[in-house]
Amino acid sequence: MAVQRDVFFLSDGTGITAETLGNALLTQFEGCTFEKTTLPFIHSVERAHSVVEYLRQVEKTSGERPIVFSTTTSNAIRDELRAAPVLFIDLFDSMLPAIEAELGVKSTHAQGRAHSLADGNRYDARMAAVNYAMEHDDGQSVRDLPRADVVLIAPSRCGKTPTSIYLALQYGIFAANFPLTEDDLTELRLPRSIATYSGKLFGLTSAIERLHEVRSERRPGSTYSSVSQCAFELRQAEQLYRRHGIPYVNSEHMSVEEIAATVMQERGLRRTA
Amino acid sequence: MAVQRDVFFLSDGTGITAETLGNALLTQFEGCTFEKTTLPFIHSVERAHSVVEYLRQVEKTSGERPIVFSTTTSNAIRDELRAAPVLFIDLFDSMLPAIEAELGVKSTHAQGRAHSLADGNRYDARMAAVNYAMEHDDGQSVRDLPRADVVLIAPSRCGKTPTSIYLALQYGIFAANFPLTEDDLTELRLPRSIATYSGKLFGLTSAIERLHEVRSERRPGSTYSSVSQCAFELRQAEQLYRRHGIPYVNSEHMSVEEIAATVMQERGLRRTA
Repeated sequence: MAVQRDVFFLSDGTGITAETLGNALLTQFEGCTFEKTTLPFIHSVERAHSVVEYLRQVEKTSGERPIVFSTTTSNAIRDELRAAPVLFIDLFDSMLPAIEAELGVKSTHAQGRAHSLADGNRYDARMAAVNYAMEHDDGQSVRDLPRADVVLIAPSRCGKTPTSIYLALQYGIFAANFPLTEDDLTELRLPRSIATYSGKLFGLTSAIERLHEVRSERRPGSTYSSVSQCAFELRQAEQLYRRHGIPYVNSEHMSVEEIAATVMQERGLRRTA
Repeated sequence: MAVQRDVFFLSDGTGITAETLGNALLTQFEGCTFEKTTLPFIHSVERAHSVVEYLRQVEKTSGERPIVFSTTTSNAIRDELRAAPVLFIDLFDSMLPAIEAELGVKSTHAQGRAHSLADGNRYDARMAAVNYAMEHDDGQSVRDLPRADVVLIAPSRCGKTPTSIYLALQYGIFAANFPLTEDDLTELRLPRSIATYSGKLFGLTSAIERLHEVRSERRPGSTYSSVSQCAFELRQAEQLYRRHGIPYVNSEHMSVEEIAATVMQERGLRRTA
């Protein structure tokens, strides 16, 4: 009785929009199993034709129509793809007409723009942010802290690094991150090099068990990963955040995407790219 | 005559799906200007109500209906949001019914799942990949190269680092990256520590002018950033890739997303997360 289905993400670009769209929709069907494949860079009718041939094979073999999420913009390519024996869900087909009507402007049908270099400035800003996050990871450099949009602080392994990287890639935010040392935590003080940036700070905590588990993967049996050490650091970190009026979240049940969106909201940041 | 419009991304989660969807659609309207705002974590009817009030203000001030891209899953919240004087485009409204009919399964209307920890294993795999990419950036470590899904090689500043990070975050791919030194390039040989992994290698090149520009930002006036040095390194890198049968792309006109999708396709990788 379990529902199983082949799913394809088709695109004339990277396929990222089709994947994001399709995956968001499929999360609404718990208990169903989806075998997912992305076919990017479908730039020609010929390529579309061979994709259709392939989808025919898949349908024949599985005995069920695949579900296809498409974001191809060329009418000719889309017409070709429609020949496939699938449930064909196309982003542009279903949503562009309403926007065209609203704006009184015809869409350009330009291919593969969503994740391209179409906007070069925006792109360069994101890459500058990624480089910044790499250079200012884990307190490695304090050279260019005045340039930071936000400085994440937390005990080791609470999610500082991936959150910084994500803020850079997704939002073009310049995010530095800084570890809290045993001394900082014991004395409930901010590391000296970031104390003057308290308006940019954002803290992370986690749950004792979760932190113990994550640290144990790295250094099993160490003091660093012990339950008592994790408990101490998390309790002190939270007190430190409160004492200095630093906004913070418990990252235990949050994804990096959710932490990043929360940081944006709480620190009143706007995407720069 | 220029079309200008306020755009809002509304979500009960991070807003990332709504942003991705909306931005992909808006790239199809060149020459129009959009003022974009994301309002994430709309978890209650009360919050939805205050969002509607805000949108009313915006509509009054600008004299034009904002465009709203929504991915809220609760019917009650969506009903509330529909009261706003906007063009309301909802992902789930427009696309779930067709999928429900196809699968013969009702959707769960679970909130904020798309970028959450809903699938903990998938999430942990992606974070492990991010940590791996950070540790194996720029040849820093060769300790765990056998674990790599792909090893990117290139002269400095052709996009190795952001591409590795993106492959990790987006696809859960374990990507190491390795610089090509002057000696490697002169002698057209692979660095010894990665020579045994030639089946995992992927090369990047760029254009001379572009590389010169990017390197000049970092070290203006240096040999490193000189046109002649950039020309030498790019020419030799391409020869090296050819000699060793390593697939490669010229990253000049490509975004990180496009490079990453190309690496996935050319090396036959499947997302692990």
